[in-house]
Amino acid sequence: MDDKTLTMSLLYDFYGELLTEKQREYFDLYYNDDLSLSEIAELSGISRQGVRDNIVRAENTLKEFEEKTGLIKRFSEIQSGLNSIQKDIDILSEKITDEEGRKIADSILVKLQDLKG
Amino acid sequence: MDDKTLTMSLLYDFYGELLTEKQREYFDLYYNDDLSLSEIAELSGISRQGVRDNIVRAENTLKEFEEKTGLIKRFSEIQSGLNSIQKDIDILSEKITDEEGRKIADSILVKLQDLKG
Repeated sequence: MDDKTLTMSLLYDFYGELLTEKQREYFDLYYNDDLSLSEIAELSGISRQGVRDNIVRAENTLKEFEEKTGLIKRFSEIQSGLNSIQKDIDILSEKITDEEGRKIADSILVKLQDLKG
Repeated sequence: MDDKTLTMSLLYDFYGELLTEKQREYFDLYYNDDLSLSEIAELSGISRQGVRDNIVRAENTLKEFEEKTGLIKRFSEIQSGLNSIQKDIDILSEKITDEEGRKIADSILVKLQDLKG
């Protein structure tokens, strides 16, 4: 996946449900199913330009949601924090000799993994 | 703060920037500055009913954003996970005797606190 596709997938994951049904449909076919504009046009019975306009509008709407709310930025800061804690726990684990302590450390690692989804 | 005010503040924190300027203005005066509908009406030179309509519309829009995206739910699951890890680290800390280990545990607690913001 190229950078733009990755960014768009992330934006879609967060804000996709805020798009119109038609925008979601074309966006999904284009970015997730990797169809070309022409293929989507043929499938939907509208012009290639019409499909393109819908997708561009959807992209702009998604970007605007993130510019305004900054929620993906908030989430990714949390993810970085979780990664950093995970490394600390790994180091800490090596210092723990007692059985129960190791179990707790392992359970923390599982919880961190879950949170990173 | 009552439950509704708390919920509305949380919704506004996440999605407030997606409201129109007017909705944000009235919402803010009502929920954050605790002004009455009549006071806002007098300040803004529109009817009490007009202010009320704007606020109700804003409330519904905010609720709809959360219903569609579920991002506050995602965040609050992360917060619960962080609380649970914090408790684990507290227990683990008591089992760590070595100096460097304690420092790492303390630094994890600081990071957790930061993430809980």
